[in-house]
Amino acid sequence: SSSDSSSQVKPEADREQAGYETLVMTSEDGITKIMLNRPTKMNALTTQMYQEIMLALEAASKDDSTITVLTGNGSYFSSGNDLTNFTHISPDEIEEKARRGAILLRDFVGCFIDFPKPLVAAVNGPAVGISVTILRLFDLVYASDRATFHTPFSHLGQTPEGCSSYTFPKLMGPGKAAEMLIFGKKLTAAEACAQGLVTEVFPDSTFQKEVWTRLKAYSKLPRNALRISKQMIRNHEKEKLHATNAEESRILQERWLSDECMNAIMNFLSRKAKM
Amino acid sequence: SSSDSSSQVKPEADREQAGYETLVMTSEDGITKIMLNRPTKMNALTTQMYQEIMLALEAASKDDSTITVLTGNGSYFSSGNDLTNFTHISPDEIEEKARRGAILLRDFVGCFIDFPKPLVAAVNGPAVGISVTILRLFDLVYASDRATFHTPFSHLGQTPEGCSSYTFPKLMGPGKAAEMLIFGKKLTAAEACAQGLVTEVFPDSTFQKEVWTRLKAYSKLPRNALRISKQMIRNHEKEKLHATNAEESRILQERWLSDECMNAIMNFLSRKAKM
Amino acid sequence: SSSDSSSQVKPEADREQAGYETLVMTSEDGITKIMLNRPTKMNALTTQMYQEIMLALEAASKDDSTITVLTGNGSYFSSGNDLTNFTHISPDEIEEKARRGAILLRDFVGCFIDFPKPLVAAVNGPAVGISVTILRLFDLVYASDRATFHTPFSHLGQTPEGCSSYTFPKLMGPGKAAEMLIFGKKLTAAEACAQGLVTEVFPDSTFQKEVWTRLKAYSKLPRNALRISKQMIRNHEKEKLHATNAEESRILQERWLSDECMNAIMNFLSRKAKM
Repeated sequence: SSSDSSSQVKPEADREQAGYETLVMTSEDGITKIMLNRPTKMNALTTQMYQEIMLALEAASKDDSTITVLTGNGSYFSSGNDLTNFTHISPDEIEEKARRGAILLRDFVGCFIDFPKPLVAAVNGPAVGISVTILRLFDLVYASDRATFHTPFSHLGQTPEGCSSYTFPKLMGPGKAAEMLIFGKKLTAAEACAQGLVTEVFPDSTFQKEVWTRLKAYSKLPRNALRISKQMIRNHEKEKLHATNAEESRILQERWLSDECMNAIMNFLSRKAKM
Repeated sequence: SSSDSSSQVKPEADREQAGYETLVMTSEDGITKIMLNRPTKMNALTTQMYQEIMLALEAASKDDSTITVLTGNGSYFSSGNDLTNFTHISPDEIEEKARRGAILLRDFVGCFIDFPKPLVAAVNGPAVGISVTILRLFDLVYASDRATFHTPFSHLGQTPEGCSSYTFPKLMGPGKAAEMLIFGKKLTAAEACAQGLVTEVFPDSTFQKEVWTRLKAYSKLPRNALRISKQMIRNHEKEKLHATNAEESRILQERWLSDECMNAIMNFLSRKAKM
Repeated sequence: SSSDSSSQVKPEADREQAGYETLVMTSEDGITKIMLNRPTKMNALTTQMYQEIMLALEAASKDDSTITVLTGNGSYFSSGNDLTNFTHISPDEIEEKARRGAILLRDFVGCFIDFPKPLVAAVNGPAVGISVTILRLFDLVYASDRATFHTPFSHLGQTPEGCSSYTFPKLMGPGKAAEMLIFGKKLTAAEACAQGLVTEVFPDSTFQKEVWTRLKAYSKLPRNALRISKQMIRNHEKEKLHATNAEESRILQERWLSDECMNAIMNFLSRKAKM
């Protein structure tokens, strides 16, 4: 089935790095792979997972690999922020929780802005929320034709993050960006490719094979040239990206404390619980 | 016929605002609609019309609606600047007229730059000149497949306005922008959509129905989230847009006084009179 | 054959400018044409050719033509930097050679940034390296369907120039730009058009006829309006383009002295010699 073909069996030869509970990190053939590994939770991002991804990116930036890849285990790439992050919060700790959440978000996105080597997303299935917005910060985004791209911020009373308020209109024009970021339109892989958010779409049945064949060839190119070229491109907008990230995180911190946002999230979770 | 299907019958339930001679302004279901209403003149923009649109936008920004829509009555969206604005000017008043024209233009475009809520264009038919360039300042642009997009500035000895010298190359790349802004190429709705100027094209026969169904759904989303997201996106370029608008208006003021421009407009009007 | 249909016979009526060895420069019908004229070397750019193109652009900027066109004689547009520029260099002159090369590159690209009139590329066949990257600095890029677009910088241990580290991601998004600039993907004319690098593609058999018919019509438009509109568009990014050009040239100067780059070029030339 299509979800079988997307699930990833770790080859014996991989040097797996220990110490991660929510990820599998391996390095081989000049490529370091960071795989989100909560398949039964559709790789929803918990606080622990945000922190482990940051540690993994830090390690990958310093290892001897040429290219770093982020992908997901199972049928989803990632269902985005785990909304249970918003539950079980007592009224007197809500402000502190929002403050810490905004710092975590800012630091997390900052790691993608600053990553110094070519960074590739292998989007094996549906992507939601922050797992969509950060894609514009990758150098290449390969997607299975099973992938979808959904940023329902307004439906949850929230606002864009991951620098998307700046990067998406720049990438696809204000109209297509508004459809996604303001009105929550879900895109197919083909649509996301037409808008430049995805670099190339592959049939799900051959996705893994084609992506890794391609990346193994790329990883043999002169590594300093690759690294310097990537940084030259990024440097043109790095300062603007950091400023945008800080401002988006600040605005979300306010949003999380608003009645509009709390009601929208509570409605969503109670609808989900009834299903 | 196709032009019948585009003409708009006002529903009884609309609360029509009084005081406009060239527009019909209505508000219903969280949506304020500003309809250009000189259908026999193809909604060409007179000085009065510029001023009434500014007043209408000011009112819409403060009412309790969630979304604001600009559209045209009849078969045209708008044929652009009414060239009779350039006639019946005595030689001794031409400099003052150009000065006032540049201020009116700058203030008009400025209202679109600063509009604080989601702003939607429902382009019911052909659009010309400034009614094309301002579209990049909207959040969503829906077009009938009968619509065309034409900016024949050079043919009239004029230069780009509506911030298009900045926004069009950013949106569609310098080549496609030059075809429109420098060389006056007219685009179909499908071509304008491929270039990102139009967000989605609908068959003319179902245009009104599909657009308003869509917008009524959008108008039910959390309104603060919509408004804040729109402003986050706009804030990244607001300062640049105002500076561009001021500079474009200044250059056009000079152009209007040039022999090249005067001759081009006189030729156009005399060719038109002979038809 | 297709290469015959792309080769350009000079009409008698052309006023050919003397003094160029690697170019043919002609002016007619308000159009100045600069034709790269080393067809047996696929119009590879030698130091002399860089200098003559700069002189030709300087002359074209001051003549009474409305539009300037750059094209290639023979089957190629240009195969890019002539790699023999890198050979026969003794170890003690290599630093000075790299320093001069970087200045030449910066001055060459600067001429395209500053060119004051509408500038058109008629890409008659394959384009490589800097002949691809500078295309984003033209106002219109017409291509034969035989043309391809290839920037194998990394394969030669080099990094992007011609302002492409800034202009390509802005034009086509970071993913498609990375494919070209970082990973050396070669684009067809249709792909380059879809990414906005090419404005329109024509069948090779009718390329010359269609392009020159189009340009003769455009050259009759009011010339001041054309020139001012072009400059308005360019002025929004002129300062950024010059800064990018200086930085890219500085980084390439370092690259040229690196072992990674020298080895990559030597490997390329020795593979070529064995063929």
